[in-house]
Amino acid sequence: MQASRIRQISPFRVVQLLERAKALEAAGHRVVHFEVGEPDFPTAPPIVEAGRAALTAGATRYTESLGLPALRARIAEWYRETAGVAIAPQRVVVTAGASGALLLLSALLLDPGDELLLPEPGYPCNDPFARLVGAVPVAVPVLAEDGFRVDPGQVAAAWTAASRGLLVASQANPTGAVLEPERLTALVHTVRERGGALLLDEIYQGLIYEDIGYRSGLALDDGIYVLNSFSKYFGMTGWRLGWMVLPESQVEPVARLAQNLFISPSSVAQHAALAAFEPAAVAIHEERRAAFARRLVRLCDGLESLGFRIPARPAGAFYVYVDVSRTGIDAMTFCERLLERHHVAVTPGLDFGRRDAERFVRFAFTTGEADIDLGLERIADALADWGAR
Amino acid sequence: MQASRIRQISPFRVVQLLERAKALEAAGHRVVHFEVGEPDFPTAPPIVEAGRAALTAGATRYTESLGLPALRARIAEWYRETAGVAIAPQRVVVTAGASGALLLLSALLLDPGDELLLPEPGYPCNDPFARLVGAVPVAVPVLAEDGFRVDPGQVAAAWTAASRGLLVASQANPTGAVLEPERLTALVHTVRERGGALLLDEIYQGLIYEDIGYRSGLALDDGIYVLNSFSKYFGMTGWRLGWMVLPESQVEPVARLAQNLFISPSSVAQHAALAAFEPAAVAIHEERRAAFARRLVRLCDGLESLGFRIPARPAGAFYVYVDVSRTGIDAMTFCERLLERHHVAVTPGLDFGRRDAERFVRFAFTTGEADIDLGLERIADALADWGAR
Repeated sequence: MQASRIRQISPFRVVQLLERAKALEAAGHRVVHFEVGEPDFPTAPPIVEAGRAALTAGATRYTESLGLPALRARIAEWYRETAGVAIAPQRVVVTAGASGALLLLSALLLDPGDELLLPEPGYPCNDPFARLVGAVPVAVPVLAEDGFRVDPGQVAAAWTAASRGLLVASQANPTGAVLEPERLTALVHTVRERGGALLLDEIYQGLIYEDIGYRSGLALDDGIYVLNSFSKYFGMTGWRLGWMVLPESQVEPVARLAQNLFISPSSVAQHAALAAFEPAAVAIHEERRAAFARRLVRLCDGLESLGFRIPARPAGAFYVYVDVSRTGIDAMTFCERLLERHHVAVTPGLDFGRRDAERFVRFAFTTGEADIDLGLERIADALADWGAR
Repeated sequence: MQASRIRQISPFRVVQLLERAKALEAAGHRVVHFEVGEPDFPTAPPIVEAGRAALTAGATRYTESLGLPALRARIAEWYRETAGVAIAPQRVVVTAGASGALLLLSALLLDPGDELLLPEPGYPCNDPFARLVGAVPVAVPVLAEDGFRVDPGQVAAAWTAASRGLLVASQANPTGAVLEPERLTALVHTVRERGGALLLDEIYQGLIYEDIGYRSGLALDDGIYVLNSFSKYFGMTGWRLGWMVLPESQVEPVARLAQNLFISPSSVAQHAALAAFEPAAVAIHEERRAAFARRLVRLCDGLESLGFRIPARPAGAFYVYVDVSRTGIDAMTFCERLLERHHVAVTPGLDFGRRDAERFVRFAFTTGEADIDLGLERIADALADWGAR
């Protein structure tokens, strides 16, 4: 007995590749990992220390469903400090990762049969959250020629009477694409004119390598729904902590949902996260950002020198979406062969939707520069082997 | 803009009472807390220490979506040790609290329009999980006269062509009721004959004060779905960790759901939980169980000596469901007056469904014996004030 939605949720292709990579490593091979969507850095020591201290102090019980008041206030303050926007602390809702935020927003906004517009290629887990509540994910193509940015005209074209909102990410996965202020503002207007909601995924906020004129979409529009996470810039993946900023009127219903569906976010993670905004931790996060920026250049330069096309160099996050059609083989086969014969793991485009998936793969620069160089060498060898050099 | 399910999710009555209790405490009053569904003990020191050690060792990253293999194996081993049942470790799925397990099971089993049978009175959050996926919760009355146990005849009567399963808890919230082996077996057969699934909530497993002939429903039937939690017996509420035991065939689809909806459970919580089964921690859990058993007797004796009717003394968990109709006032008013005038907080029956809700309140013995005595004295005073003595 299984619900019909089970058939609509595909396994990630990269999971099978990961298992194969582990088997290769178990057999003694060194694998270069460009497939991992998680920073390779552990959580910064000041945050870990705050977590340890919270445990010692006995912070092991449920907290408020919407999060520790001190953490909600600290996050609001962070928006003031970094993005120059005033957010009332009660509009900040702490969640069990951005995953928890996606669940709460889906439950809050989407009835069965409602449509949620999602960019394709995009983060593959958005789709199942919509399906979970009986809603219908509708793909909005983002084009390589347009730097993988969501186009308001495409949103307008995809919008129907059943559409309730658009969920966009900036910076985006798998492309690292960033929405410049004019583009984001145009998207907000397109959605709002039609009575819908704009949901902005900012989980890579902080991991930005160019000045794009704003630090949070909230600086451009106060009425959007913002999702965020302690996983990426703050390096706290395994703690499972994120947050949302909501319109004031939605806080009460979200509180009811959170009480029922989560009880509370992790206590130790919340206490640790309070330290994530302190200067000692921020200094470490900024060092890591600089490291990601160096890796970005090294990886993109290397891939381009091998003849791969990168339609849009990422401005943020830690992904680059690479056109591998010059090899003459499709992207899925490229991934399989590269791993099997040359021990380099990358993620096939199919994990991010069908659009152009046969041509693209995602490289994550969540690995050090030495491994980036090694990976590039191996790819050069692969191209020579395949006669694609 | 809100989904229609938002209107179907009631706020907990106890939340308002809790806020009022906090206000009274802020004004300098001592409040006796019988309303809290969380052990008053902090997490046992060996578990806390294991959490601290894991943080020091850098266990801050995502784990496997279904949980650390070592923890899945340890949980399976615990079933062998305590319940005498052999469970393959791969059937154990670690979740973000029992809440996470409820979400995954709802997503796995329930299509929009499907019905899930739920005992009433019962755990109030089961209902929103069914509604989340568009399913319809159907109440099965549990009767005081039958010791608040689910009756197979009532299940058969409530079953329709749209019914997919029955979710029962043993031990139960808010009644502490336990299903004896014959009753549980009869429920399994009733559901299975009709092609449905039996979901057994065992989150209070371990907090049992009588020998009922089995330690897990898995000892009686290998084909049920079991939910469990590290929150109650293991005292790890704020860590947000639970688990399920699934039929083998359901592990792969649940893995797909968990990858998408959760990524992974908390890393530090999982590493800490490994210590929860060690003798040093178990000794503490057993001391606490003995304390709960003493409190149960003290509270029930005290309430009965004040003339309250307890249809079924709890055999497990830390709740007693008390008939307050002897006071001549309805349960909600009883709760409000008792808190406002006598500074004793209890949870009104309305938070557990409508059935008999005007007559019943839940007392949780998650407070020490001195506070139980003080609470009973205050209730005696209240009865005298109200002319109900």
